[in-house]
Amino acid sequence: MAQFRNFRMVNYVVYGRGSFNQLDEILAPQRKGDAPMIFFVDEYFQDQQEFLSRIPLRGKDKIVIIDVTYEPKTSGVDKLRDDLKAEFGTVSGIIGIGGGSVMDTAKAVALMMTNPGSSVDYQGWDLVKVPGVYKAGIPTIAGTGAEVSRTCVLTGPTRKLGMNSDFTTFDQIVLDPELCKTVPANQRFYTAMDCFIHCVESLNGTYLNAFSQSYGEKAQVLCEEVFLDKDVWDDECDEKLVMASYAGGMSIAYSQVGVAHAVSYGLAYVLGTKHGIGNCIVFDKLEEYYPEGVEKFKRMVEKHKIEIPQGITKGLTEEQFESMISVSLGMKPLWENALGKDWESIMTREKLRALYERL
Amino acid sequence: MAQFRNFRMVNYVVYGRGSFNQLDEILAPQRKGDAPMIFFVDEYFQDQQEFLSRIPLRGKDKIVIIDVTYEPKTSGVDKLRDDLKAEFGTVSGIIGIGGGSVMDTAKAVALMMTNPGSSVDYQGWDLVKVPGVYKAGIPTIAGTGAEVSRTCVLTGPTRKLGMNSDFTTFDQIVLDPELCKTVPANQRFYTAMDCFIHCVESLNGTYLNAFSQSYGEKAQVLCEEVFLDKDVWDDECDEKLVMASYAGGMSIAYSQVGVAHAVSYGLAYVLGTKHGIGNCIVFDKLEEYYPEGVEKFKRMVEKHKIEIPQGITKGLTEEQFESMISVSLGMKPLWENALGKDWESIMTREKLRALYERL
Repeated sequence: MAQFRNFRMVNYVVYGRGSFNQLDEILAPQRKGDAPMIFFVDEYFQDQQEFLSRIPLRGKDKIVIIDVTYEPKTSGVDKLRDDLKAEFGTVSGIIGIGGGSVMDTAKAVALMMTNPGSSVDYQGWDLVKVPGVYKAGIPTIAGTGAEVSRTCVLTGPTRKLGMNSDFTTFDQIVLDPELCKTVPANQRFYTAMDCFIHCVESLNGTYLNAFSQSYGEKAQVLCEEVFLDKDVWDDECDEKLVMASYAGGMSIAYSQVGVAHAVSYGLAYVLGTKHGIGNCIVFDKLEEYYPEGVEKFKRMVEKHKIEIPQGITKGLTEEQFESMISVSLGMKPLWENALGKDWESIMTREKLRALYERL
Repeated sequence: MAQFRNFRMVNYVVYGRGSFNQLDEILAPQRKGDAPMIFFVDEYFQDQQEFLSRIPLRGKDKIVIIDVTYEPKTSGVDKLRDDLKAEFGTVSGIIGIGGGSVMDTAKAVALMMTNPGSSVDYQGWDLVKVPGVYKAGIPTIAGTGAEVSRTCVLTGPTRKLGMNSDFTTFDQIVLDPELCKTVPANQRFYTAMDCFIHCVESLNGTYLNAFSQSYGEKAQVLCEEVFLDKDVWDDECDEKLVMASYAGGMSIAYSQVGVAHAVSYGLAYVLGTKHGIGNCIVFDKLEEYYPEGVEKFKRMVEKHKIEIPQGITKGLTEEQFESMISVSLGMKPLWENALGKDWESIMTREKLRALYERL
């Protein structure tokens, strides 16, 4: 068995302010006959006609607005696939324009256009066996790292788990910091903290090597430059944050996230708490595990006047707590990365219950 | 015309101490029938039986020792291609194991296995029109960035110029810091400085954006950690230097090298000075253009007790000086990056002559 992951990179990256304008030219060689390109667009843009008009539609191309009220579900992915198959038979490619949920949906549907059955069948590691259709990711908010990851996280009937495979990685990403300009400050903060937190987790983990360390350190430094050193938000902040997200995503190659992500997965499963804000809610209480990172985080929260929600687990039923704990403890590699081989004796159900009660 | 380069990434990267042991497994799915894998190996390893025996030969696979006395020539590339075609007809792939010269030779021959004519015909930008055979790069010395670049620099009958194209990029790289362990300290220094110098050049250039800046900054910091902060050379140094080389190579995506490379190209063309040492000889005299970088460089030279050759242009003929100057001034994008649009009025033939005379 391989000791080190042979990491599948995104084939093509274009980075630059205004690079979104090159999309037509980038997609042209990927078009297969008259099969359309399908653009999955974050609902955030649904009334922004000026932005929508910049999407280079040709022939039967179609814009599909993606509802991001909840994080992507396997049922939603299957339905999008069924609808596209019914309408077009086949497509040239799927282009995801938005945050992590939209990019993950684009990856999943692109895979499901060619892989039989339900996306539920592919939640796990290396279960996808056939390349999907062409897929491109265009982030409009920075921090998830979904643009470079080999997964797309989906909530299924029994678990929240990604379709992790070399086929999941995008063929192309377009990193245009201009697209992030209008993101509301709160949302921008939560999403950027997804990056910052996973850097802290991976840099303090037991799974690290120099590849992931150098990417993680750079991503963390960029977040700190943007949220601690700068006093006004300007173009340079968006430019650096887009790179922080990319570098943070790359750092995952040979590292793993840790306590914040493991606990946050439980919140997401039971309460539907979104990934970005969920990580912040949890990380805010993790001074025991990541003292230096949590101290910096609290300074950023204060400087940017963010209100981290409190008391979100108040009044949950015993069953709900048990379910959260089980989902969280199921993320074994995350716990092992954070706490070492003996993690099960350190993070008992009781200790985790106490942590959930503080959130 | 595209404003930002759509950067072709290496498809697969494996990074890790001992990852060279995974080579057999990595190559297996790339083998086409009984067509052999050809391993181009740096002559440095020609008597190291233990290392050579670790190369996973199967069937008709062959090790070809590459003479690196001079940097790769178009004639040498064409001959290697002709020999392989005569012996095998076709091959499954070319694996370059060594420094920048060996990796560049591997890229060039892989392309020439499928592209007609001479490699001279493809020196330039985007002249290669057909993918080559599968190719993988395995650096055994860190700093050139050749493992991630979209070029392979070749000296032809009239010029030293790479085959720059999206097809030139490796399909796979194996980054195993253990392979760098036995590099002689002088050679290690010169090659690492290739990375450090190109970071200084690109970070001080006019062509920079946040993508290249973040890679360049990281690569430069890693070089400084290794050569200024550390007092003994240990495994961590090799691990960081391999990442510095990779990050330095990536930083080239949206940046350009500058004065040191432009001047050093002239030395290489007329005197055959190798790239790594040539850059050091030139950079040592560039305090006017890169004051901070040159100051750090001189501290590294002193700390590591490196003797930078002096007086190498003494006694050259008028014709040789003129030829060096012409080759160097031909590198227009490098000069423009370093000195701006008006570079021709700043770097006159007289000024460049005076610089060459100081080397």
